[in-house]
Amino acid sequence: MPSRPGYAHVTQVPTRWADNDIYGHVNNVQHYAFFDTAINRWLIEEGGLDIHGGDVIGLCAESHCTYSGPFAYPDVIDVAMRVGHLGRSSVRYELALYREEDEASVAEGWFVHVFVDRETRRSAGMPDRLRDALSRLQVPATEEASS
Amino acid sequence: MPSRPGYAHVTQVPTRWADNDIYGHVNNVQHYAFFDTAINRWLIEEGGLDIHGGDVIGLCAESHCTYSGPFAYPDVIDVAMRVGHLGRSSVRYELALYREEDEASVAEGWFVHVFVDRETRRSAGMPDRLRDALSRLQVPATEEASS
Amino acid sequence: MPSRPGYAHVTQVPTRWADNDIYGHVNNVQHYAFFDTAINRWLIEEGGLDIHGGDVIGLCAESHCTYSGPFAYPDVIDVAMRVGHLGRSSVRYELALYREEDEASVAEGWFVHVFVDRETRRSAGMPDRLRDALSRLQVPATEEASS
Amino acid sequence: MPSRPGYAHVTQVPTRWADNDIYGHVNNVQHYAFFDTAINRWLIEEGGLDIHGGDVIGLCAESHCTYSGPFAYPDVIDVAMRVGHLGRSSVRYELALYREEDEASVAEGWFVHVFVDRETRRSAGMPDRLRDALSRLQVPATEEASS
Repeated sequence: MPSRPGYAHVTQVPTRWADNDIYGHVNNVQHYAFFDTAINRWLIEEGGLDIHGGDVIGLCAESHCTYSGPFAYPDVIDVAMRVGHLGRSSVRYELALYREEDEASVAEGWFVHVFVDRETRRSAGMPDRLRDALSRLQVPATEEASS
Repeated sequence: MPSRPGYAHVTQVPTRWADNDIYGHVNNVQHYAFFDTAINRWLIEEGGLDIHGGDVIGLCAESHCTYSGPFAYPDVIDVAMRVGHLGRSSVRYELALYREEDEASVAEGWFVHVFVDRETRRSAGMPDRLRDALSRLQVPATEEASS
Repeated sequence: MPSRPGYAHVTQVPTRWADNDIYGHVNNVQHYAFFDTAINRWLIEEGGLDIHGGDVIGLCAESHCTYSGPFAYPDVIDVAMRVGHLGRSSVRYELALYREEDEASVAEGWFVHVFVDRETRRSAGMPDRLRDALSRLQVPATEEASS
Repeated sequence: MPSRPGYAHVTQVPTRWADNDIYGHVNNVQHYAFFDTAINRWLIEEGGLDIHGGDVIGLCAESHCTYSGPFAYPDVIDVAMRVGHLGRSSVRYELALYREEDEASVAEGWFVHVFVDRETRRSAGMPDRLRDALSRLQVPATEEASS
């Protein structure tokens, strides 16, 4: 299982042929798909999120990415994440993307989920199991500072 | 030609079937594809950017989006844009996304392009025609402030 | 409203920046997204298909495409379609893709929808309004033969 | 390394969040992205295809898929492939998609690559190393017949 300093969890996402755009590198839009995919996988597998029928779902309220270098198909990407702020019905993830074989990240970003009732789309408290899973992604301040 | 207060140009982008995710609305990642598509269209059609063989290309250095409501297929989206900062080799676009039939935006964001040499990928000054096209997307401070 | 000989309806789909792959043309996968988007738009707008909550939904059972030339962003694509076979619970669409400004098609294909109950995913008869909308996409044999 | 009866090679492709469409399963279009991704990975890693600057590139001439069941995020997909026909400048791949944990395939298809000169886009013979790599994906008739 890969790990990355300063982050609590790493998910590997292999790139796909069509992630490459005309400039021969992974299109900037796909970085957000890597964030989305890693985050929801944690919510489903660790947090018990039922994306098909659960009462509470997570909607993206804000996202951000800075790019310091390229990925290209067929790279495998390490999506490292930790939880920055964990509220009653929202959470802010901090993420970094690495080529599997490199130490320095190629992109960094963050992503805010607001949990809402599936039907009304109004803010809803997270279920305990979900919140517990997210709390396991928090990183002690000192460790984060040294990253 | 649609227009939106406080923005210099509007490009219409119809949604596609698969933009809708499991929650029945356009996935948050696609908003960046709407940005990317509208920006590059301006660069190509107005700025003379030659994406196939030109010496200078634009790479995304940073992007951001805040989401205040959903889109859903088959919506048509008005992608409104203006240029905030215009440098020698970089530009910051400010964008807002609207449902064609609504007055209030559903998402807002920004996007930074750095222009580089296609081969070396080192920072390069924008060609005059490109820079001129971008300058036409600048909005006077008073107009912007009132938006 | 554009029309194409031998086809009953045309939907315009503008390409997006990231449709272009590393070879500078629209990736072959996207052609199926153009099919999907044009078909479902007809089903929703003319056939009354309720993709969010209706009892009956359409699933793809088979699809096919032959490619005779490239598209590239920022092309606008005319997606021409007609209905070949129309059954009780299934329909076969025949499609052709054109650059807006050209007479010859660049790709041709077909797509089979099977209508099923949303919950059980078992075969279900089409609602009358849907079937009626699909019947309007049928083209008389003589007209089709001459295309 | 996973294997599948009747096929010469298996590539694993994990699904992504946004592969799921509004019906809660992987959109039919993505199946072709799975084909594309597995095929090109073999061409690059085994066949020496240089997608960034090589003289010869592969273009899709025809593709097909039949769907017998759904995938859903977060499934991992086994993309099994073999070469059916191998010509001087073209190749026909036969593919099947499986959920990692299942024995029966969920979709089957084929895909034809025509190799062309990157600049002129005219038909070009495959380089020896590429052709050799493709020949290793051929399956003896008896084995194929029994699959």
